[in-house]
Amino acid sequence: MSTVTSTGLCPIRRALISVSDKTGVVDLAQQLHALGVELLSTGGTYKLLVDHGIAATEVSQHTGFPEIMDGRVKTLHPKIHGGILGRRGQDDAVMAQHGIDAIDLVVLNLYPFEKTVAKPGVSLEDAIENIDIGGPAMLRAAAKNWAHVAILTEPSQYQGLLAELRQAGGVTKARRFELAVTAFNHVSNYDGAISDFLSSVKLDDTQSEIASREAFPGQVNGRFVKVMDLRYGENPHQSAAFYRDLYPAPGTLATFRQLQGKELSFNNIADADAAWECVRSFVKPACVIVKHANPCGVAVSLDGIGRAYELAFQTDPTSAFGGIIAFNRPVDGETARSITGRQFVEVVLAPGYDDEALAAFAAKANVRVLLIPPPENGDLRAAHPGNDSRRVGSGLLIQTADRGMITADDLKIVTERAPTPAEIDDLIFAWKVAKYVKSNAIVYARNRQTIGVGAGQMSRVYSARIAGIKAADEKLEVRGSVMASDAFFPFRDGIDAAAAAGISAVIQPGGSMRDAEVIAAANEAGMAMVFTGMRHFRH
Amino acid sequence: MSTVTSTGLCPIRRALISVSDKTGVVDLAQQLHALGVELLSTGGTYKLLVDHGIAATEVSQHTGFPEIMDGRVKTLHPKIHGGILGRRGQDDAVMAQHGIDAIDLVVLNLYPFEKTVAKPGVSLEDAIENIDIGGPAMLRAAAKNWAHVAILTEPSQYQGLLAELRQAGGVTKARRFELAVTAFNHVSNYDGAISDFLSSVKLDDTQSEIASREAFPGQVNGRFVKVMDLRYGENPHQSAAFYRDLYPAPGTLATFRQLQGKELSFNNIADADAAWECVRSFVKPACVIVKHANPCGVAVSLDGIGRAYELAFQTDPTSAFGGIIAFNRPVDGETARSITGRQFVEVVLAPGYDDEALAAFAAKANVRVLLIPPPENGDLRAAHPGNDSRRVGSGLLIQTADRGMITADDLKIVTERAPTPAEIDDLIFAWKVAKYVKSNAIVYARNRQTIGVGAGQMSRVYSARIAGIKAADEKLEVRGSVMASDAFFPFRDGIDAAAAAGISAVIQPGGSMRDAEVIAAANEAGMAMVFTGMRHFRH
Repeated sequence: MSTVTSTGLCPIRRALISVSDKTGVVDLAQQLHALGVELLSTGGTYKLLVDHGIAATEVSQHTGFPEIMDGRVKTLHPKIHGGILGRRGQDDAVMAQHGIDAIDLVVLNLYPFEKTVAKPGVSLEDAIENIDIGGPAMLRAAAKNWAHVAILTEPSQYQGLLAELRQAGGVTKARRFELAVTAFNHVSNYDGAISDFLSSVKLDDTQSEIASREAFPGQVNGRFVKVMDLRYGENPHQSAAFYRDLYPAPGTLATFRQLQGKELSFNNIADADAAWECVRSFVKPACVIVKHANPCGVAVSLDGIGRAYELAFQTDPTSAFGGIIAFNRPVDGETARSITGRQFVEVVLAPGYDDEALAAFAAKANVRVLLIPPPENGDLRAAHPGNDSRRVGSGLLIQTADRGMITADDLKIVTERAPTPAEIDDLIFAWKVAKYVKSNAIVYARNRQTIGVGAGQMSRVYSARIAGIKAADEKLEVRGSVMASDAFFPFRDGIDAAAAAGISAVIQPGGSMRDAEVIAAANEAGMAMVFTGMRHFRH
Repeated sequence: MSTVTSTGLCPIRRALISVSDKTGVVDLAQQLHALGVELLSTGGTYKLLVDHGIAATEVSQHTGFPEIMDGRVKTLHPKIHGGILGRRGQDDAVMAQHGIDAIDLVVLNLYPFEKTVAKPGVSLEDAIENIDIGGPAMLRAAAKNWAHVAILTEPSQYQGLLAELRQAGGVTKARRFELAVTAFNHVSNYDGAISDFLSSVKLDDTQSEIASREAFPGQVNGRFVKVMDLRYGENPHQSAAFYRDLYPAPGTLATFRQLQGKELSFNNIADADAAWECVRSFVKPACVIVKHANPCGVAVSLDGIGRAYELAFQTDPTSAFGGIIAFNRPVDGETARSITGRQFVEVVLAPGYDDEALAAFAAKANVRVLLIPPPENGDLRAAHPGNDSRRVGSGLLIQTADRGMITADDLKIVTERAPTPAEIDDLIFAWKVAKYVKSNAIVYARNRQTIGVGAGQMSRVYSARIAGIKAADEKLEVRGSVMASDAFFPFRDGIDAAAAAGISAVIQPGGSMRDAEVIAAANEAGMAMVFTGMRHFRH
């Protein structure tokens, strides 16, 4: 065998193939065989190749050592690992001495451990039995020796490698390195999933093989794939990048496709997420405008999203300037023109756009237009972003995402007067908005339109004052509006002030020590008040 | 060898020892030897044992296969892996047939890959050469076969295992499982660090062995260790836990020790972090009170933290109720009594407490008292929490932490009147506070005391109005105060309003298209204004 330096092309004389995901592997093996590559294989892959009439050698035949312990030990052998790890040129003599043939290509992928443990009724014993020892060892060996060996871990890599072999007669250094990085990412994901699972298992000594799992494992191994580098972070002196989960939930922001516009910024993405999460919580046509992480205008309209946008814009035109606008329906041309004709907009998000809408946005080339493909069942509300987390210094707070939803049936009427059906509509609407407003959150709403949004205050009474001030500044009528509060009122003063402003109905979690006093205040003013029993702090 | 079931004790007849961290390994080997355990070893560990007169067998002698390729292939052999992976009872015959001796204990740890690649001038070749193939394979094999094998990966585990061997004559199931989980966590951390590194390397074909790194790798593998489960998340219907980095930065919140008080909540921890990060940015004695993620009162006093607390409290006593209070100096008895005598407090944080302070807090058993040990050099400002991240749906925004710091020398005076030395002091003070207030942030301050904090608004003008309203509500004198704005003023109206309220000096980043107009407004009012050139959005 000729000496190959790490800077040159690596020819492929011998390949070891052992894959969990068998997509394309028969074709790969056939083409490698046609290129004169000797094939080694094991287990199910070997059987598949032989069934397709492809000449391959079983690993145990190659090593001269049988597969033992139901396959636990088959590739963990110096003939295999020496063949993968040998440094061409440097180790040729010792390889010849011990009859070690160089293995120039390893084709190997691991069955995702997440899927193993997601199977219903999986036992600890099953999970452990599924942990592959030999596969990761070969994968890691091949990736380590990337200077001389190529490692394929994804079917999507097969054709590129074959093309290069045909054209150049070997694998380039750049490709080998890229393949090695992907391989190490693959094994890191595999081991991370095992660590996540095992460190969440409670071993119950009385039931030897039944494991219960903790909601939060002893070690958490985040696995994030880079989507894009960002020009800078929250501020220009910070650098940043955007990542997505290894398995992002369909229908969430991370699955976006950008159809046009400038590069997304850190703040664009953060605000877009807030807008998208809020708008997709509505069933009827809705529009949410976000600025500085808070909804500054939200509306629902049975006349469609065009009208919803107009109503949302009215709440706070000043803040809407340069905002992020999200819809829960495909955007039509009229709505798109209505936006671009009226305001400066940073980002538009929707589950779809018609041609007219795209043409209207195309006329404003800077506007970032994002398409979020809906989940398979079409229900935007079905997307489940999994866990939420918050970075605190060198720590991480992890919590289940706030998926709490309230329907009219969940409301507990606590006042003498029950809310009218129209008030209930508005109360539910205002409650959904309040969930996405930074705490303390107070939302005034009427006819499914936000009238004033009081956000981010350290005491609830200031949030209520701001909501009132904003409504007055925009000359929006508070009389007859409803009020939502993301947490309970600690005192009656908030209700008294709301009553004075003309608020007719209130929605809040309840649960204050002074609920009786708060209810009395509502009764005195003839207001209707409902308790949700659920708080929605969002900081 | 007797059959051992997975439910019972596992005796240790033979151990394989191969460690990077040699702490305590000689003692362990001596004691295992004394207990009649046969020892196998490799490389540096073998030499160390032999140097200490401990009888051990080299792995190559055991396998009958030499160590080849400078150690790349030594343990990757069926006699080793069969010995580790064999199921006692089930695989005894096949083991006997192939002369495979059972290995009941593996003592193995890996040199942290983070440390390898943190070495100055490390080349890609060095890094790759340091990737261990045989070690992780044995570690994973032993952990997989935990039903029959014990795996030690940390010196802290040695004595417990030895004690159990002496007392019970074997290793219990519960311990073996715990050791296996730790081992899988260890190897997951190792592979995560390799993935992080390699996916950040840019392979430069013109310089074959010199790798430059990207700030943000193609894959990020978070590695977090659980500190505690939390009763619930941001809201009671969410579940949550608190984690820390594998290597937390000294002096950051994640290193806290709770000295007394109720269990910390999710919101406690989030607010404590905001308070701690803010207070540790000050050099002189400082106090920060946080509520709902925002500083609601901050002060610095040369008279000490007791006076700083009183001043901070004055800013907004309503919000301070139930707040989080942080100090950048050890707390004395008088300050502690001043707090507990005046207000309900959720959490107190400081780099230390004297006995009198601890006694005062002990009288209020619910108060959570947290000690954050200062970094080794004693400078709280030196702690570096590394990267900041923000969860967005199934995505993650990662950015470098906002470590931007401004000193008086960095200020660019843009008005006809330069700020007085006292104004400069207050401007820098207000600027540091504004950095920790949610955007849009406006902070009024005088004599190193916050006078009004306008937080979390979707337009800057409302934040300014809130700061003014709050000052007026608390009857704090705005005249002669300074104003900090976390981002530039887009229009002159903010300055005009500030001038009318009596603000004498302004600090802001500058950089608006209308800076000239904004500067003119300040000049007309005889105000001093400085530009920092640095923005501090915080959402």
